[in-house]
Amino acid sequence: MQSSFRFIKALKRQPVDCTPVWFMRQAGRYLPEYRAIREKVGGFMGMCKNPEIACQITLQPLKRFSLDAAIIFSDILTIPDAMGLGLHFKTNEGPHFERTVRTKQDVENLPIPDMQSDLGYVSEAVRLTAHEIQHHTPLIGFCGSPWTVATYMVEGKSSKHFSTIKNMLYSDPKLLHALLKKITTASALYLEAQIQAGANAVMIFDSWGGALEYNSYLQFSLPYMQEIVTHLKTKPSTKDTPIILFTKNGGQYLEHIAQTGCAAIGIDWTVDIAQARSRVGHLVALQGNLDPCVLTANPENIVREVKSVLDRYGKGSGHIFNLGHGITPDINPDNVQVMIDTIKQYSPSFHSKE
Amino acid sequence: MQSSFRFIKALKRQPVDCTPVWFMRQAGRYLPEYRAIREKVGGFMGMCKNPEIACQITLQPLKRFSLDAAIIFSDILTIPDAMGLGLHFKTNEGPHFERTVRTKQDVENLPIPDMQSDLGYVSEAVRLTAHEIQHHTPLIGFCGSPWTVATYMVEGKSSKHFSTIKNMLYSDPKLLHALLKKITTASALYLEAQIQAGANAVMIFDSWGGALEYNSYLQFSLPYMQEIVTHLKTKPSTKDTPIILFTKNGGQYLEHIAQTGCAAIGIDWTVDIAQARSRVGHLVALQGNLDPCVLTANPENIVREVKSVLDRYGKGSGHIFNLGHGITPDINPDNVQVMIDTIKQYSPSFHSKE
Repeated sequence: MQSSFRFIKALKRQPVDCTPVWFMRQAGRYLPEYRAIREKVGGFMGMCKNPEIACQITLQPLKRFSLDAAIIFSDILTIPDAMGLGLHFKTNEGPHFERTVRTKQDVENLPIPDMQSDLGYVSEAVRLTAHEIQHHTPLIGFCGSPWTVATYMVEGKSSKHFSTIKNMLYSDPKLLHALLKKITTASALYLEAQIQAGANAVMIFDSWGGALEYNSYLQFSLPYMQEIVTHLKTKPSTKDTPIILFTKNGGQYLEHIAQTGCAAIGIDWTVDIAQARSRVGHLVALQGNLDPCVLTANPENIVREVKSVLDRYGKGSGHIFNLGHGITPDINPDNVQVMIDTIKQYSPSFHSKE
Repeated sequence: MQSSFRFIKALKRQPVDCTPVWFMRQAGRYLPEYRAIREKVGGFMGMCKNPEIACQITLQPLKRFSLDAAIIFSDILTIPDAMGLGLHFKTNEGPHFERTVRTKQDVENLPIPDMQSDLGYVSEAVRLTAHEIQHHTPLIGFCGSPWTVATYMVEGKSSKHFSTIKNMLYSDPKLLHALLKKITTASALYLEAQIQAGANAVMIFDSWGGALEYNSYLQFSLPYMQEIVTHLKTKPSTKDTPIILFTKNGGQYLEHIAQTGCAAIGIDWTVDIAQARSRVGHLVALQGNLDPCVLTANPENIVREVKSVLDRYGKGSGHIFNLGHGITPDINPDNVQVMIDTIKQYSPSFHSKE
């Protein structure tokens, strides 16, 4: 079935009229209407677990901006939360787990969550949102990469050096593989459920793959993302849904990532998008890669930098404009408007027929 | 003049009998004898500014381990401190400046510190230390890269997103260049002074170059390190002193860094050292790149990982064993001993004549 969504076409490297755009954390703290809901509802996980609220937040940026995709409002840590680790968010401190996973017994005790009874709230939010927008905007489902999710499960929180999980990696790699395997099984079912609920594309966020040794990335992060991709590509109900893989600080691995069968690679701003395009050839589309800090600048500089990303990607389809990482809470939404206007006005010339 | 130091020979890619080793932050908090001095003397900068104490701390790891180089105990922020910004360290919070540099006036007001009256304490520490060890161990002097030092001067402290300095970069690049130019002038004189005081090699730490956009790194970080290298390479008194450049997360730029005229490139663990060697060819030596977290593992795993780095570099000179970043305070010094013993026992076979 051919999609008419510009975002989906670009993911499949089919011709488009202009470069599609969405951006990571587009439904988030930089929006006053988001902060208003958050103040009313309270905790972050409370918002994620309420499908009506999650839907409402997902739609907020679409009301302000002409975006080519929505991404379901949720978190990469819903799976370990559903495994019973007790997730909560302290203000300005990021996620904390009540229980960590550090021993063989801990790993063996982890259940694979049930996608209905444990994580049905996510599918339900996807269903509600897809129903609202499917006539005009595609919806992205997502999960964290098994390695990235495992870092939080083992460390118990955000980490600077990842010493505890890396100690496991170097001292007991079999145990880490067992943990990753379990997260992978759950993640594959989770993305499958989101697609069945109406997600038009899915993305795997590997926020911490870049913290690994070069060869460890190829053993402990990429193969598990590969396994999720393979799972989805071999099921009739999910095989046509494009998958985006994003490893922050993963610029060295583009050729490897491109071989997984994903439709697109997300790249951060430390990668030159022109070089990235020539490295991956026609295998995949590219999503990125404006430095979010550009959005702190004045309009004229934002225009220059947005054009520079488009110029460097160059002519032809296969580019989804995005930030290189999530938008930060300090950004003025007016500056986002400048970014999007620039893309809409400047990018059509890259897609005109020669 | 030929040096007989294994470390200096390896920097010049001359034959050695075994792979030399030293490691970043080898004089630091993981050592109980360091913590004892720190408790007695008090503040971190107080220790840096007392040449006898700085010398004593520099020598501590040499007394425990068979190391091939010492690095002077100091900090990359001595220059902005000497420019009058008021540096202090809060426990567990890293550096803070009393005054930041954000406007044209701020940059213009910055003095180039006098290497004797303002920074003489560093040269004096180098002189004392070199005098103590020059018959058996070479001494490394160092500074921060202009970009990295500038991040602290503009942000006022450690930063996650670098939004303030990146706002300057995108909104007023001329102002940032003026600041970088000033830091560069001071840094070149500073390394020159350290060499004249007895440093046998110097290293430039670009801890935050990896946070830049790909093309921004080539405009705002590398050219200023290049300028320091050029300054040192054109002065008779400093031209033979090997220079090591280290950009954390700089794996994408090895070919560019290798062209600067530096003797060696420091690499972190996200780079495969075998690939790095084939990328830089015979232009430079490589220093690195064990993940510091390996030192949290048990001895048998440390041995395996240390051997793996040596194996991947392979036969021949041009490798200085190091960690990919500074050792963390949680490491047991006994594990460092395991690392060093492994290098001493295992590496000679890579250097035997064929």
